[in-house]
Amino acid sequence: MDVYEKSLQLHEQWAGKMDTVPKCSVQTREDLSLAYTPGVAEPCRKIADNPEDVYKYTQKGNTIAVVSDGSAVLGLGNIGAAAAMPVMEGKAVLFKSFGNVNAVPICLDTQDTDEIIDTVIRIAPAFGGINLEDISAPRCFEIEQRLNDALDIPVFHDDQHGTAIVVLAGIINGLRITGKKKEECRIVVNGAGSAGIAITKLLLSYGFKHITMADRNGIIHKDYDNLNWMQQEMTKVTNLENKTGSLADAMAGADIFVGVSAPNIVTQDMVRSMNSDAIIFAMANPVPEIMPDEAKKAGARIVGTGRSDFPNQVNNVIAFPGIFRGALEGRASIITEEMKLAAAKALAGLVSDDELNEDFIMPEAFDPRVSDVVSAAVKANIK
Amino acid sequence: MDVYEKSLQLHEQWAGKMDTVPKCSVQTREDLSLAYTPGVAEPCRKIADNPEDVYKYTQKGNTIAVVSDGSAVLGLGNIGAAAAMPVMEGKAVLFKSFGNVNAVPICLDTQDTDEIIDTVIRIAPAFGGINLEDISAPRCFEIEQRLNDALDIPVFHDDQHGTAIVVLAGIINGLRITGKKKEECRIVVNGAGSAGIAITKLLLSYGFKHITMADRNGIIHKDYDNLNWMQQEMTKVTNLENKTGSLADAMAGADIFVGVSAPNIVTQDMVRSMNSDAIIFAMANPVPEIMPDEAKKAGARIVGTGRSDFPNQVNNVIAFPGIFRGALEGRASIITEEMKLAAAKALAGLVSDDELNEDFIMPEAFDPRVSDVVSAAVKANIK
Repeated sequence: MDVYEKSLQLHEQWAGKMDTVPKCSVQTREDLSLAYTPGVAEPCRKIADNPEDVYKYTQKGNTIAVVSDGSAVLGLGNIGAAAAMPVMEGKAVLFKSFGNVNAVPICLDTQDTDEIIDTVIRIAPAFGGINLEDISAPRCFEIEQRLNDALDIPVFHDDQHGTAIVVLAGIINGLRITGKKKEECRIVVNGAGSAGIAITKLLLSYGFKHITMADRNGIIHKDYDNLNWMQQEMTKVTNLENKTGSLADAMAGADIFVGVSAPNIVTQDMVRSMNSDAIIFAMANPVPEIMPDEAKKAGARIVGTGRSDFPNQVNNVIAFPGIFRGALEGRASIITEEMKLAAAKALAGLVSDDELNEDFIMPEAFDPRVSDVVSAAVKANIK
Repeated sequence: MDVYEKSLQLHEQWAGKMDTVPKCSVQTREDLSLAYTPGVAEPCRKIADNPEDVYKYTQKGNTIAVVSDGSAVLGLGNIGAAAAMPVMEGKAVLFKSFGNVNAVPICLDTQDTDEIIDTVIRIAPAFGGINLEDISAPRCFEIEQRLNDALDIPVFHDDQHGTAIVVLAGIINGLRITGKKKEECRIVVNGAGSAGIAITKLLLSYGFKHITMADRNGIIHKDYDNLNWMQQEMTKVTNLENKTGSLADAMAGADIFVGVSAPNIVTQDMVRSMNSDAIIFAMANPVPEIMPDEAKKAGARIVGTGRSDFPNQVNNVIAFPGIFRGALEGRASIITEEMKLAAAKALAGLVSDDELNEDFIMPEAFDPRVSDVVSAAVKANIK
């Protein structure tokens, strides 16, 4: 039985991957009078008098909603709200298992930007944070930005920032090995959707100067056709020489390749055209842009993928549980660029000089220190 | 320390009365590949192909949302979304503890009828049912009705129907004691909000013929001022003689009084004016319309209240967990009048002839059979 058949069988057995479980027992009349009426009136009154007390007396401080409209689910595309549920439940499992954050899957029966925003604003009182998930670009940018403007709780689109944080952590450690300086590195990011754009932004925030984005039609430049508004924004801060050409043209002379694009689109010749000590993150799933052994044979020094069966897996799970844990514990109202940078540095720092090598640049997903250091980094950067 | 202080202290300690807890462990890479990517893609694909499969592979079949806008919370009134959270969490505790139904508190940052309806429709994909709670009348009637029309999952306003079911169960057992026939009983329902109206409707469905509603200004009749649309509807099926007058006028010659109104508004003289073997449900909380000992001294045979420290407590908790458990197990798309009647009869039937007496007409909240018989009654009436 392959992983898909086995997963299907387990999903039928689980019939939902999360339970809601009371923290208090109600086995006597007195229990009922304390957890429910009449006693419950007292915390209600306190919150009515002082809205901040909702963090003191309710779940809000440790509970987030995992919200999707099902428009860009895994590699499956626009499969809608109901079909997105197994992923959102899975995400909730990871939030709890890795970050001890309570999480509620919410799949929305609308893909209209304004309706999504209105709905999330209206359900926000019960939640201390909103994790957006699998919402297609460019709507995801507007939705996240407008929700962060409207709400006093953090709103975080993991497909963007979780990925960006983990990639940056890997690149930081890649530079520890290669000894290159961030200001001088030339980076190609292939794929201009939510992940590619967020990765590019975070790499710029970290201090990389020379980033070129590309997609299936080649290098993205100021006169490229059909760019969405966010891609147009990116042309102001990337590819400052306004080069044109193919992905192969972009990669010639580059130090780092980051792919969030499609299988097998990077050739060994492209890798050979890169600078020495090249770093490759080939994260197309399940088949990467180039297989690690091929990239290595063509001269790449460090290769990461999205897969767990190769070294250097880029796995969001080392970021998002700790991000929200820290944001909730510190009562952040937004997750800032500083917090994301601090999280990436903290993750990179978990790999000691002794451990660090070409095949070990990422902390393990199951390293129990991961959520601690990420949440601490986030908390330390709350203003 | 009184119940309010103690409850407050416990609420601070709990900091949220519900946890979300994974049913599956994620301690190895294989675990991750089955509960999350890549395996999770398979249940997603199945649901995309066949929307009904959402019940097979996700939480939908055993998870409800407990939704409030905070407009009519307990006796506290319109305290808003955040302040309503302790009650909704408490309700979620009861759903799980008494019905093994997963429940998620959702408090809405809007009190606009259309916005509430739109929001609930949009979050519905994740849930197998919607329990509406503490929404003020008459908006609650329209919201429930329009949501039931729009959604293929059951929507149930517990303040209305939970209360009605339990009151009917008590009255059924009251008649077992007094031997009166339902067709001949005269009933006064005092209080014309959500509970009073729902009680009246369910009593009519059960077969009572002579019901008069009253509120603080006296008997409700066709020419009464300022009735809302639902109260106007009720004038077509209650008080068919179109009597006018005070509550005292209504109670003279009545067999049953049901109060969901205000403390101490029923006098001993009013009880004396009722027929022999009078049944009184004085459910104003925490101080009933008349105290049980006074009602008894004035000749009432059976007295119930909302309180746990007197006999015959009218407590919704014996209804709503089993109602939703049965509706979910049977995949009901709506909770019909037949199901409510069946639930009330099943609850009444739990009190055996041997046990039944003036001070024991209701099954105990902690009787483990309660949820079983209510859910079975609901399931047996799904069409």
